[in-house]
Amino acid sequence: MPLTRIHNFSISLDGFATGEPQSAEAPFGHAGQRLHQWMMATRYWAADGTTGVDDAFAERHTPGIGAEIMGANKFGPPGWHDDPDWKGWWGPNPPFHTPTFVLTHHARPPLEMEGGTTFHFLEATPAEALATAREAAGDQDVRIGGGPTVVRDFLAAGLVDHMHLVQVPIVLGRGVRLWDGLEAVEQAFDVEAVSSPSAVTHLTFTRKAP
Amino acid sequence: MPLTRIHNFSISLDGFATGEPQSAEAPFGHAGQRLHQWMMATRYWAADGTTGVDDAFAERHTPGIGAEIMGANKFGPPGWHDDPDWKGWWGPNPPFHTPTFVLTHHARPPLEMEGGTTFHFLEATPAEALATAREAAGDQDVRIGGGPTVVRDFLAAGLVDHMHLVQVPIVLGRGVRLWDGLEAVEQAFDVEAVSSPSAVTHLTFTRKAP
Ligand SMILES: NC(=O)c1ccc[n+]([C@@H]2O[C@H](COP(=O)([O-])OP(=O)(O)OC[C@H]3O[C@@H](n4cnc5c(N)ncnc54)[C@H](OP(=O)(O)O)[C@@H]3O)[C@@H](O)[C@H]2O)c1
Ligand SMILES: NC(=O)c1ccc[n+]([C@@H]2O[C@H](COP(=O)([O-])OP(=O)(O)OC[C@H]3O[C@@H](n4cnc5c(N)ncnc54)[C@H](OP(=O)(O)O)[C@@H]3O)[C@@H](O)[C@H]2O)c1
Repeated sequence: MPLTRIHNFSISLDGFATGEPQSAEAPFGHAGQRLHQWMMATRYWAADGTTGVDDAFAERHTPGIGAEIMGANKFGPPGWHDDPDWKGWWGPNPPFHTPTFVLTHHARPPLEMEGGTTFHFLEATPAEALATAREAAGDQDVRIGGGPTVVRDFLAAGLVDHMHLVQVPIVLGRGVRLWDGLEAVEQAFDVEAVSSPSAVTHLTFTRKAP
Repeated sequence: MPLTRIHNFSISLDGFATGEPQSAEAPFGHAGQRLHQWMMATRYWAADGTTGVDDAFAERHTPGIGAEIMGANKFGPPGWHDDPDWKGWWGPNPPFHTPTFVLTHHARPPLEMEGGTTFHFLEATPAEALATAREAAGDQDVRIGGGPTVVRDFLAAGLVDHMHLVQVPIVLGRGVRLWDGLEAVEQAFDVEAVSSPSAVTHLTFTRKAP
């Protein structure tokens, strides 16, 4: 049975997955690149990067994934849907290379990009969106790509099988929190923590057998 | 120069250091003992306990400490100050064994207990309370014993030299948060993270040299 997976999802000590305000100049607001510096230092990201535990986790992002689901605020800054030419942050060849489903109340026709990524826009419940993405993914897994609002909704709906979080030792103070409304969510998972010499801690949530 | 230290301060993934509601029956509210199970499993707590990384951190609570400062809500449940016989949660011989300063707006005369603990009750700013505790501690360090409101106030005032937090992989959802109002507090510290086979992660904050 294919899985629903989350990878490399980075949060601050106080649980924020993005700062504020989000804008075209600052996709993560006042957080800047601080939530993802650990990843940009790995070989997964840069040819001369590190190859230890951070890299081992980072590179699991891609293999075995047949579709991604993301939220409207990951796809673009506030107001992107008023720009008919907006095609996402990632240039002509986005790093998804699969059908990619953007949850939004401002649907538009699909966008076929280079390298295998096609953006599909849909308004649907998490369960409906997952069924659609599963069909597109064939026998491969579906990744929930974020942002925090979408991750939270899929967790609350009990739809996540594997979640890799990266806790970065900074206190952001403001932005969008991951954990709100998720009291006791850990009880459905086996949780493992491993800290890295880079000072981040990798948290792995594996859904318990039913 | 003596230090101001915090030890074994346990928080959930979402940053709560206690659940709710606090009461005589449930000092940590709906959190129960979940925030401190890691510590109760160590030899520091029980003769047949574990002796690994959790124990190594836990036992640093006591040596070199000459006084503790705690908040009114650590000293007792809501309403304790209406009970003239309330002497804290810990029985006749509390585990502090030093002068212990209880910050409260309901001061009362000092309480001398067995084993070296004397509770002093005072209304003072964090800096004033620290000066008083320092004097009582002589050449030894002062521990900030919690709860989260008091820890937060001492962090915000820049008065903490060493902080040991223990992050427990549970999502409490409600209670009293540690991190509120502490945006960027980590910038004054070197931060180290080490996760334990018990699944908790020890975070050590060491104040940077000025
Ligand atoms: N920390 C990380 O690892 C990480 C990972 C990915 C992204 N991010 C960051 O997270 C931020 C975005 O997160 P976010 O929580 O603000 O937003 P988000 O989760 O990306 O998107 C939420 C938005 O998606 C649309 N949406 C969600 N569910 C829907 C549904 N069922 N049907 C229709 N539309 C739906 C709604 O937008 P509309 O109503 O406007 O259409 C909603 O406001 C960005 O800053 C991004 O860079 C961080
Ligand atoms: N997770 C852990 O490791 C840990 C450690 C210790 C305690 N705890 C738990 O934390 C909870 C208590 O934390 P909390 O944040 O609710 O409260 P707290 O920090 O223990 O105490 C706050 C209270 O202390 C008094 N106070 C604080 N600063 C003062 C000042 N400058 N001057 C005078 N009075 C002052 C005020 O009470 P009044 O106005 O009523 O006097 C204030 O409401 C308890 O459940 C306890 O079991 C957890």
